[in-house]
Amino acid sequence: MSLTMPWFGTYDAKSAVMGVLPKSPNGEMAYIINNNAQARFDTKNKISPYKRILSLMPVWNLQDQSAEIEIAYYFIPRGNYTHMAKIYRSISQERGYFKSLQQKAVENPEVKKLAGAMYIGIYGGYPHYINLPGVAFTFDQLKGIIQSIHDSLNVSKAFIHAWGTYSNYPPYNWPVSEALGGPEKLKQAVDLAKSYGYLYASYHSYIPALEHDPDFTADYLPRDNQGNILLRNRWLRNDSKYYKGLAEKTLEKELAAIGQNADVTDISFVHIPGNPVKGSVELARYIRQHKLVMGCERGEEYFIPYMELFEGMDAYNQKLANYSHPAPLFNLVYHDAVATYGKIQDNDLIASEYGDFPVKTLRKMVYGSGSTLFFTPYEYEGIKPMIKMAYNALSKLHENVFYAELINHEFLSPDFLLQKSEFSNGTKVIVNMAHAAHSTPEGEKIPGYGYSILYGDGTVAKGEFSMNLKINE
Amino acid sequence: MSLTMPWFGTYDAKSAVMGVLPKSPNGEMAYIINNNAQARFDTKNKISPYKRILSLMPVWNLQDQSAEIEIAYYFIPRGNYTHMAKIYRSISQERGYFKSLQQKAVENPEVKKLAGAMYIGIYGGYPHYINLPGVAFTFDQLKGIIQSIHDSLNVSKAFIHAWGTYSNYPPYNWPVSEALGGPEKLKQAVDLAKSYGYLYASYHSYIPALEHDPDFTADYLPRDNQGNILLRNRWLRNDSKYYKGLAEKTLEKELAAIGQNADVTDISFVHIPGNPVKGSVELARYIRQHKLVMGCERGEEYFIPYMELFEGMDAYNQKLANYSHPAPLFNLVYHDAVATYGKIQDNDLIASEYGDFPVKTLRKMVYGSGSTLFFTPYEYEGIKPMIKMAYNALSKLHENVFYAELINHEFLSPDFLLQKSEFSNGTKVIVNMAHAAHSTPEGEKIPGYGYSILYGDGTVAKGEFSMNLKINE
Repeated sequence: MSLTMPWFGTYDAKSAVMGVLPKSPNGEMAYIINNNAQARFDTKNKISPYKRILSLMPVWNLQDQSAEIEIAYYFIPRGNYTHMAKIYRSISQERGYFKSLQQKAVENPEVKKLAGAMYIGIYGGYPHYINLPGVAFTFDQLKGIIQSIHDSLNVSKAFIHAWGTYSNYPPYNWPVSEALGGPEKLKQAVDLAKSYGYLYASYHSYIPALEHDPDFTADYLPRDNQGNILLRNRWLRNDSKYYKGLAEKTLEKELAAIGQNADVTDISFVHIPGNPVKGSVELARYIRQHKLVMGCERGEEYFIPYMELFEGMDAYNQKLANYSHPAPLFNLVYHDAVATYGKIQDNDLIASEYGDFPVKTLRKMVYGSGSTLFFTPYEYEGIKPMIKMAYNALSKLHENVFYAELINHEFLSPDFLLQKSEFSNGTKVIVNMAHAAHSTPEGEKIPGYGYSILYGDGTVAKGEFSMNLKINE
Repeated sequence: MSLTMPWFGTYDAKSAVMGVLPKSPNGEMAYIINNNAQARFDTKNKISPYKRILSLMPVWNLQDQSAEIEIAYYFIPRGNYTHMAKIYRSISQERGYFKSLQQKAVENPEVKKLAGAMYIGIYGGYPHYINLPGVAFTFDQLKGIIQSIHDSLNVSKAFIHAWGTYSNYPPYNWPVSEALGGPEKLKQAVDLAKSYGYLYASYHSYIPALEHDPDFTADYLPRDNQGNILLRNRWLRNDSKYYKGLAEKTLEKELAAIGQNADVTDISFVHIPGNPVKGSVELARYIRQHKLVMGCERGEEYFIPYMELFEGMDAYNQKLANYSHPAPLFNLVYHDAVATYGKIQDNDLIASEYGDFPVKTLRKMVYGSGSTLFFTPYEYEGIKPMIKMAYNALSKLHENVFYAELINHEFLSPDFLLQKSEFSNGTKVIVNMAHAAHSTPEGEKIPGYGYSILYGDGTVAKGEFSMNLKINE
């Protein structure tokens, strides 16, 4: 499925209807968005007599006999998308997708360090290039940035994800680059991060097979019945059955050398038709044996029992977001089971159709998600104020609601930009992502790009972002 | 053509090559972007042996006997994109596309009001809806905003474009809505704008035929040889041969009623295959008889002799911008012939892949373009600071370089975000669109999101944008 969760629905003032697909559906979702089927009338030289409609429907693959072809519909009097999400929450628990962060923290106390943590990706050109001049960082530089984040910016909670620590390209995440300082220097950076209570992971991936890799091999590519190689996009190329074996070659060596306390594996857990989930699950189980706080790019609900963090839920389908008013559907189901962060390609420092830094930060606040900041070392000086702002606005809230269920989300203004959410620990968050001030139905005025948090214990936090022009003539 | 100008090229440190297409080419441009033709090898189960390349090539329509099929290539030792643009500038002058803003200002002194003007679009829901609650403005409200822009924000140069002044949908831009205040009230707003030295235009368009228009008519739709209606997208539907007739029905009535001094006609001047340019040119000539400062959505080079302003050059092809480092190619050819502004759908207030407010404003500065701000009245209070910042950063520069040729543009940093341009009046502009400070080769340090202007008369202007978080606990 090309949806994050296999359900869809619609509602009006009177009722809601939702359709839930089987656990392993085989099909695609088809959309009709603001269309009146004019194309069918073009050939008749007529204007369509129909109104423009919006519709969403599954298109089954009838060739696939193994898949279930079934939709369960639920009708909810006076329901809305929150009610739908809560129905699906029960279903996902029955399906075995749900495992709480609370339980994960009992099994591995390191998980507690994720509560309130900003996800800070430091990009050294890897996995695209090795030692790219002006982009690659030495491990001393990496350590310096980690120290500055802690000492200068006073960030007490962070997940440091370093992109570019090996002298080989993925899928062979080893050895630690001597050119950048060698394992002893990298260990110093990791030790420093751990001494601050941070989580640390180096970039890992097991699925790419890159033509520009001098050690490119076709050994891990999938093959058809005749033994012919099957090719996919170079970043999504290796067969999942090899993932665990690849990890076994390198992960324990790395742990012995640098002692990281977390793992984020890129792309390898993304669902790809024809690439068995089984291999990815074996990889997840293998990594999990090492008591690492675990995450992956994007995220699929069936990996929730194995992971604490999904990187990239927000930008999963940008096109759909353009047409609709995004709501935190995934977090309404899973907030207390997995921590969601923004995708590095659309991280909070980057302006996109999904918003600029203030809008993205405010959206994370009302969704109960965490900040994602991704940068190249030469950019660090410039983004220090943004790291500090994101931390000040979001970190305490993220820590406060980390184990809590997101129990409600509402749009409070006609432009959908004033939003309110409520967590099971009593914390309530209101954000205004509009230029202009908006007032809540209760009469609380929230300034443009402002927020108002009422914590479960009664304390209040308010703030607002603004743009400035300083003229130095 | 799907390019703004019919030429393309490439260069390296040694030389440049450019291809120039005929005045009326008939074809499309095909791109290969970072591709190694892997698809051709997929079926053979092989990895492509080729390198990834970037290529641009014309694909001719050989069925069309009337079109010229010819490319002229120019080879420029030590040349770059600026040299290419200047070669095309000569060609465009020979082709009759070039008419300077200086000459236009001699013919119509009102054009001088465009120098330094911010393009401020006020959206009242029109042409999508008439009197949309919460969005439509009364003419008293419109007048109030114009007054506030002048008196509170001290904006001395502006082009006010009001979207929503009629009680009919386009293409029939008449009568002035009585529900919103009637022509006397609208004239008061227009008179006030004119008293400030502003330009004013109400939204016009002659090409839409909207199904939800109660007066929808097929009378203006194009027909094939058998008399059957030919349908296009509802916003691009009417045949250009009717444009002038439609304008004749309404434009002079409007001039008599409200006395506007400018005209922006939306969409109707966009090139649509099969919609003869002739009809659009007749419309342009007709409007021009009325001594209005003229503009249109997007803009095509063959309308430059008729128009002073093109709205929307920047976002003409967003996809291409994503893959490349945008350079002001159009302005290198035409800066002193037509004033370019940003597209309202991607205006400077909106974050997009093209940047946020600071980046968009800085890009306008280094391109010699003008600010575009587009908002709904309820947003006005929230965007006042941005109007003021855009005015303070850009208006004086825009006025200074308005009649000048853009003679050079350079990328000064490896990330392409430090840029410099030079105008024929001696003014030089450096902007830094990066998070971090960058230094010029001469050692001038430009802060992140900062700019440095050296005017032709030796005066200097410097400034920098920043984001703030104010915490009100």
